[in-house]
Amino acid sequence: MSRSQTAFLFDLDGTLVDSVYQHVLAWKESLDSEGVNLSVWRIHRRIGMSGGLFTHMLLRETGMEITEDRLERLRIGHAAAYARQAANGAVKPLPGARELLAFLSDNGIPWAIATSGRMETAAHNLAALGVDPAKIPVVTRDQVRHAKPDPDLFVTAAQRLDCDIGRALVIGDAIWDMLAARRARALGVGLLSGGYGQQELEQAGAFRVYEDPADLLRHIDEVVARS
Amino acid sequence: MSRSQTAFLFDLDGTLVDSVYQHVLAWKESLDSEGVNLSVWRIHRRIGMSGGLFTHMLLRETGMEITEDRLERLRIGHAAAYARQAANGAVKPLPGARELLAFLSDNGIPWAIATSGRMETAAHNLAALGVDPAKIPVVTRDQVRHAKPDPDLFVTAAQRLDCDIGRALVIGDAIWDMLAARRARALGVGLLSGGYGQQELEQAGAFRVYEDPADLLRHIDEVVARS
Repeated sequence: MSRSQTAFLFDLDGTLVDSVYQHVLAWKESLDSEGVNLSVWRIHRRIGMSGGLFTHMLLRETGMEITEDRLERLRIGHAAAYARQAANGAVKPLPGARELLAFLSDNGIPWAIATSGRMETAAHNLAALGVDPAKIPVVTRDQVRHAKPDPDLFVTAAQRLDCDIGRALVIGDAIWDMLAARRARALGVGLLSGGYGQQELEQAGAFRVYEDPADLLRHIDEVVARS
Repeated sequence: MSRSQTAFLFDLDGTLVDSVYQHVLAWKESLDSEGVNLSVWRIHRRIGMSGGLFTHMLLRETGMEITEDRLERLRIGHAAAYARQAANGAVKPLPGARELLAFLSDNGIPWAIATSGRMETAAHNLAALGVDPAKIPVVTRDQVRHAKPDPDLFVTAAQRLDCDIGRALVIGDAIWDMLAARRARALGVGLLSGGYGQQELEQAGAFRVYEDPADLLRHIDEVVARS
C-alpha cells in the first residue's frame, strides 16, 4: 500500500529553474547548424518534451530525414550551445523555488523532481537549487522508457516516494507536463514562469495556474491541506 | 483628405523578423549586470514597449531607483548583448514576411513599419527584410514622443502613408501593439511568432490572430479586399 498523502511532483526547467529561454536559443543554434529552419516561437512551444521526441517531431514537421547521426549531432549541438547560454551563472532558481521546497520538507509533504532532461544537464540546476539527488528522488530522461508527454516520468517519481499518483500534484510550466499529469490521473498545476500563456496551460488541463513557485507558495492552501 | 484605402502598419521584431527571444536574453544580461533580478518570462511579457518605458517599468516594479545613468547603462548593455545574440546571422525574417510585403506592394496596398526600437538596431532587420527606408515609411522610437502602447508610432506611420488610421490594420506580435491599435481605433491583427499565447492577444483586442506572416498571407482575404 502506498501512502495516502498528496505528493508534489515537480518538473525542473521553467518550473523550479529559470532556464527555458536559454534552452530555446540553444536548440535554435543547434537546429540552424543542421540546416533546419524553424522559427524560435515554434521551438519554445515544443520545449519540455524529451530532446529525442522533440527533435523527431521537428524533423518530421520539416520533412527532413531522421537519422541517428543527425539526432546525435542535434543533441550534442544543443548541449554545447546551452552550456554557452548558461555560462556566467545566468541560470538561477526561480523566485520562491527554494522556499517552496523547504516548506514542503518542513511540513512532511513528500516531493520529487521529474525532468525530461538528462542527469548531465540537470546536475547544474539541482546544485543551484540545493537539491541533493542522494536524498530527494530525481527522475531523469535516462531512467524511463518514454518522456513527456507520456506520464512515465511522473509515475516513476510517485513510485519512488511510495505515493499514489492518483493523489499527486504535478507542477510544471509546459502543456506537456499538464498532458502527462492528466494521462496519469494526477492533478496538474501550471506555472507561467516558462513563458507560456495562462490559457494554453488551462486548455491542457491545468487545475490551477500560478505565476511562479513564489506565487504557488502564497496560495498553497488552494492545492493541499497542511497536516 | 487622406486616402480611403486600408493600410497595413507593421511592428518589426517578432512580427516581420524572428528576433524576440534574442532581445529577451539580451535584456536579461543587461539587467543582471545592473543587479536587477527578474525572471526571463517577465521580461518577455514586457518586450515590444520602448526600451525606455520598459526599463522604467521594470525598475519601478523592483523598487530600484530610476536614474538617467542607470537607464543609459541598461540601454547600452542591451544593445551590446543583442549584437552578441544576433551575431552569425542568427536573426532572420519570419516565414512569409518578404512574400507578404511583396504581395501588398504588387496589389497597391499601402504599408509601413512602426517599431519601438531605434534606427540603429532596426537597420539590420530592415536590410534582412530587403526594405529600403528611403522608399518605405519606417517610423522608429527616435521619431515620436511616446512609444507603444501609446498609439503615436502607428498614427505617424498612417500619416506618412496619407491613410486614415481608423481604416488601418496594425499587425503585431505583442499585446502592446494590440492596445496601441485600439487606442488609435485601428484594427489589430496578432501574430504568434513573438511567442505570446493566442488568448493574450485576443484579450488585448486582436481582431484576428495568425501564426506568422505566411499564415496571414494565406488568410489575407479575411482582413482586406483585393482591388
